[in-house]
Amino acid sequence: MGRSSASARSASSDGTTPKATAGRLSLYLRQLELLWTDGRETVSSSQLGESLGITDAQVRKDLAYFGQFGYPGIGYRVAELRDSLKSVLGTDRPWQTALIGIGNLGRALLGYGGFRERGFVLAALFDQDAALVGKKLHGMTVQSLDELESMVAKRNLELVILAVPAQAAQQVAERAERAGITGILNFAPTEVKVGQGVKIVSVDLGLQLEQLAFQVRHGADSGG
Amino acid sequence: MGRSSASARSASSDGTTPKATAGRLSLYLRQLELLWTDGRETVSSSQLGESLGITDAQVRKDLAYFGQFGYPGIGYRVAELRDSLKSVLGTDRPWQTALIGIGNLGRALLGYGGFRERGFVLAALFDQDAALVGKKLHGMTVQSLDELESMVAKRNLELVILAVPAQAAQQVAERAERAGITGILNFAPTEVKVGQGVKIVSVDLGLQLEQLAFQVRHGADSGG
Repeated sequence: MGRSSASARSASSDGTTPKATAGRLSLYLRQLELLWTDGRETVSSSQLGESLGITDAQVRKDLAYFGQFGYPGIGYRVAELRDSLKSVLGTDRPWQTALIGIGNLGRALLGYGGFRERGFVLAALFDQDAALVGKKLHGMTVQSLDELESMVAKRNLELVILAVPAQAAQQVAERAERAGITGILNFAPTEVKVGQGVKIVSVDLGLQLEQLAFQVRHGADSGG
Repeated sequence: MGRSSASARSASSDGTTPKATAGRLSLYLRQLELLWTDGRETVSSSQLGESLGITDAQVRKDLAYFGQFGYPGIGYRVAELRDSLKSVLGTDRPWQTALIGIGNLGRALLGYGGFRERGFVLAALFDQDAALVGKKLHGMTVQSLDELESMVAKRNLELVILAVPAQAAQQVAERAERAGITGILNFAPTEVKVGQGVKIVSVDLGLQLEQLAFQVRHGADSGG
């Protein structure tokens, strides 16, 4: 189970943490939040992995990238590991986030409670459509994309949620990059390319449905 | 690299394929589609895993759950492995899918091209709101939830995309279960519980944004 120190290293130093490991950290964090809600104080690596279909060895290996979180004979302390994983993931502090594209998807995302809950603050709304600029939604005024640069500086915007049509995505992403944005969550169903300084995560809803088809076909365990 | 037969087993016989493996199958399939578009005919396990941050050993282990796809001295044949993975995932045939909830998110999903591309046919629309019932959207008429049962039979509906508010999700999911639906893609930001006969995949958009924060914080490789 590792040693008794619980300090989180800031990263694997060469920046080569596999994406798959990062993805599992989010899943562990969800489990820890559920355990914490249930009043559990400690958890073993096998319990943590069990409902996710991940072996205890994999859990220990994933966590070992970032520090030594376990206590001999005890396992992990739920609240402590939760806080450590938040720190590793970077969600131990709020992220100022802009939403670009106020169509149906953008409006749906505006009403989505799961972002703020995880530390993401929607701090500005943008759209190219002059008919939308000036409209008030959720207490914020939709702004023209021409104001992106000045708002990035003024509001310390770091991330962008890109909810624009596929044909506009590349151009808007480049504009966000020039404005100094460091991360883009891309909902446009197209590949977007930016420089090394900007990270992109694309949401592939088709993939999620494919996973459902797999589970229905194979009778795999139901997800939550 | 395994042997020369390329037949796909229908499943790991005990139905215990780890969810993580299933998730990686979708990622391999995406890579194979890109490789195929680029005109590549063969690929090695290390090439297949490389851009996904997955080791060649893990790639081979994942694929070995489902059959022997490799050829000694050649690797995998791109088109053949792509077709085999589609068959394993169950997307080698269309899935009749209903969309329940025609709010902003539902409308955004209706306009999303990525479902049909992967074999999911939106065949019926439902909403509880009488003001929406009868409305025509994308060539389909929004129906009352009261017609769910009869439409499941009439259109062989198998999957449901649940885009209703959190407070309605559990009740609507149970109704879909009673109507004979076997899989639910849940967008409602809440936990939904159904019986063993219905599989659920929940889309956690907060998790995706968390992964982006991690990449920005650690300078990990940019996703696509």
